[in-house]
Amino acid sequence: MSAHFAQNNEIITASRTGGDLAVDIADSRSISAMFEKTGMIDAIICIAGEAKWADFNELSEDDFYIGLKSKLMGQVNLVRIGRTYLNTKGSITLSTGILADDPVVKTTSAAMVNGAIHSFVQAVVLEIENDIRVNVVSLGLVEDSYERYKDYFPGFNPIPMNKAVNAYVRSVQGKNNGEIIRMYH
Amino acid sequence: MSAHFAQNNEIITASRTGGDLAVDIADSRSISAMFEKTGMIDAIICIAGEAKWADFNELSEDDFYIGLKSKLMGQVNLVRIGRTYLNTKGSITLSTGILADDPVVKTTSAAMVNGAIHSFVQAVVLEIENDIRVNVVSLGLVEDSYERYKDYFPGFNPIPMNKAVNAYVRSVQGKNNGEIIRMYH
Repeated sequence: MSAHFAQNNEIITASRTGGDLAVDIADSRSISAMFEKTGMIDAIICIAGEAKWADFNELSEDDFYIGLKSKLMGQVNLVRIGRTYLNTKGSITLSTGILADDPVVKTTSAAMVNGAIHSFVQAVVLEIENDIRVNVVSLGLVEDSYERYKDYFPGFNPIPMNKAVNAYVRSVQGKNNGEIIRMYH
Repeated sequence: MSAHFAQNNEIITASRTGGDLAVDIADSRSISAMFEKTGMIDAIICIAGEAKWADFNELSEDDFYIGLKSKLMGQVNLVRIGRTYLNTKGSITLSTGILADDPVVKTTSAAMVNGAIHSFVQAVVLEIENDIRVNVVSLGLVEDSYERYKDYFPGFNPIPMNKAVNAYVRSVQGKNNGEIIRMYH
C-alpha cells in the first residue's frame, strides 16, 4: 500500500519494529513523539493495533484490555493527537475488520474493539474541525493472510490485495467522511 | 421494568445505590460478590454502566477509560462471570443505545462503548455454553429521559416506555440469541 501512495505522495512509515519512525500506538506518548517528528501532514493511515484471540472462556479481564489499549485506544489516540498535526482538509483512516459485523470463534475481544471503532468514527466526524475527514476501512480476510488464518474463517472469501488497497485509496483520495468502508467479498 | 417481570418471576435488583444487592459493575470483584449472593438464576438484565459525555476536544485518554471500565468491561464482565451462575437455557440481556448507530455531539466515548457491545454480543454467542442466550437492547431516547436529554438529540423521537420494556421482554422471553434489539422510533 505504501508503494501505491508513494507514486504521488511523500510517505512516512512508522511501526514498532520498522519503518521510518518508531511508534507504539498503545502508548499515547509514543504517538505524540512520532507526530513531533513528522510535523504537519495531509493524511494519516493506521493499520496497526493488536487484540488477543482466545476462547471466551479463557480470556481474562486483562486480556480484554490488550485490545482496548492497543487497537482501540491506540486508534482513538491517533485521532485525538494526530488531528492537531493535520493540514486543513486532511484525512485519517483507521482499520478494523469483518469481525465487527461477522465474528468467528475466539474473537470476542477483537470483534468488540472493531465495533467500537466503527461507532467512534461515526461520532467523531460530528465534531472534528478543520474539515478533517475520518473513515475506517473494514476488510475481510485479505489474500496475503488467507493461508495463515483461513482455518479461523470457514467459508470466508479472501479479499484480493488490490481491493484492499482500493478501500484505503477511497478513504484518502475520495470525499468520504465518517464512513465504514467495508470490503468483505 | 422490574414491575413487569415481577408479575411472573422472582426478581433480585442490584445497583450501586439501591436495590436488593449492592454492585458496582466497573469492579469485577463486586460482580462476583453479587452473584455469590444471588446463587443460580435464570436471567440477567443489565441496565447499568456509565461513559463520559463531553466534546471530543476535551475528552482525555483517561476520560475514555471511564466508559471502557464501566459500561463496556462492566457488561463484558457481567457475561464472563454471570454465565457460571446461570441455569441452562438462561439469558443475559445487556444495554446500549442508539448512539452506536446514530451518534450525536459529545458522544465519541459513549458511542464507541455501545458499538463495542454490539459486536461483542454477536461474537460471544458463538461460544457461550449451556444454551445460554445473550442479546443487547439498544434504545433511542426513552420517554422518561426525554425532557432531560432532548437538547442533545435534536429531532430524535421519544421511545414510549412500554416499547422500551418490550425490547427487554423480547430478549428474556423470546428465543432471540446474539441479537441487537434496536428500538429507535
